[in-house]
Amino acid sequence: MKQGIFITAEGPDGAGKTTVLQKTCELLESQGHDVLLTREPGGISISEQIRHVILNKQNTEMDGRTEALLYAAARRQHLVERVKPAIEQGKIVLCDRFIDSSLAYQGHARGLGIDEVYRINQFAIEGFLPDATFYFDIEPEEGLKRIQKSGDREVNRLDLEKLEFHKKVREGYFLVMKKDPLRFHIIDARKQLESVLEETKNKMLEIISRKLQ
Amino acid sequence: MKQGIFITAEGPDGAGKTTVLQKTCELLESQGHDVLLTREPGGISISEQIRHVILNKQNTEMDGRTEALLYAAARRQHLVERVKPAIEQGKIVLCDRFIDSSLAYQGHARGLGIDEVYRINQFAIEGFLPDATFYFDIEPEEGLKRIQKSGDREVNRLDLEKLEFHKKVREGYFLVMKKDPLRFHIIDARKQLESVLEETKNKMLEIISRKLQ
Repeated sequence: MKQGIFITAEGPDGAGKTTVLQKTCELLESQGHDVLLTREPGGISISEQIRHVILNKQNTEMDGRTEALLYAAARRQHLVERVKPAIEQGKIVLCDRFIDSSLAYQGHARGLGIDEVYRINQFAIEGFLPDATFYFDIEPEEGLKRIQKSGDREVNRLDLEKLEFHKKVREGYFLVMKKDPLRFHIIDARKQLESVLEETKNKMLEIISRKLQ
Repeated sequence: MKQGIFITAEGPDGAGKTTVLQKTCELLESQGHDVLLTREPGGISISEQIRHVILNKQNTEMDGRTEALLYAAARRQHLVERVKPAIEQGKIVLCDRFIDSSLAYQGHARGLGIDEVYRINQFAIEGFLPDATFYFDIEPEEGLKRIQKSGDREVNRLDLEKLEFHKKVREGYFLVMKKDPLRFHIIDARKQLESVLEETKNKMLEIISRKLQ
């Protein structure tokens, strides 16, 4: 059975990773690659129902550990129903956020512990880690400014957390990257979109050609 | 701060534990004890929303690991919002099913592994294990017969699983009890209700008086 490639994108909100992934996906498709661009919950019914519970603004009493378990559950279902079948069909799967978001947000920024959150996510993914992960780096002040300016989606409960939280998120990402440095490619997302896009495309094509050799 | 007592009841469906807990609760209250009788999701809004996802009959695609993570999430929220505050107020908390149900049902019967499911539940409960657990033992054939006869609740997705599954559940409970024998009190639930009730009451009063000494 032909095996595909599993690539994830990570970074604080407002780093532009969603736009960059979209454009990279178009480029890869124009070159004849079979690409699946997705993000949890990704239209998977069970994962959507779980995400609805997480983002419900009335659930102000939600404990940090409950939230982390719910993210892991939504991840599991999306992985089993969408990501794995595509990889098995030989597709290139680009996933906008994955396990590292939980490690940075819940594990480090919310203080649950990166190793503890990794453990429940290992239960969820059973060792199915990405072949490569792009980390789009930006200072939290800049990232939040971009979100507010763009106004392209509703600001949710997580956005409303204090700036201090987002600084911890970025710190968390750097701690996670230290634990698994070979998997990560750091992209400086403060640069102009064209430049970020160019760097991402080149790196991704390099990874794909290496894997397909 | 005065500490209460945390007691859970476990067993296959149809063992009668819900009825026995209800009557034991009434007895303890008549003796002046402050008792909270509960079961997950127990009216805790977030846990109810999660349980709704688990029991939704349309979610036929639900992966076993997704389900186990959702149970752990619902457990966490119920523990934090209901059980812990009551214990801290010095109450006797009687909880109908807790971590051992997940170990027997998901861990053993669904084949995810008792130790693996224990790990995500440890994340959920942070070492907050019951002071004592009553296991109401009954053969699966007998338990299912009782449920169908009573007709006091709708038969759900879990009830519809094959008898073989329920045999594995019982086997799972015995494996779990072997790992932590001092916490468990096995009650023979094949006996007449009066007899089961009498044995449970006596054992529970013994535990309570020992703890309150």
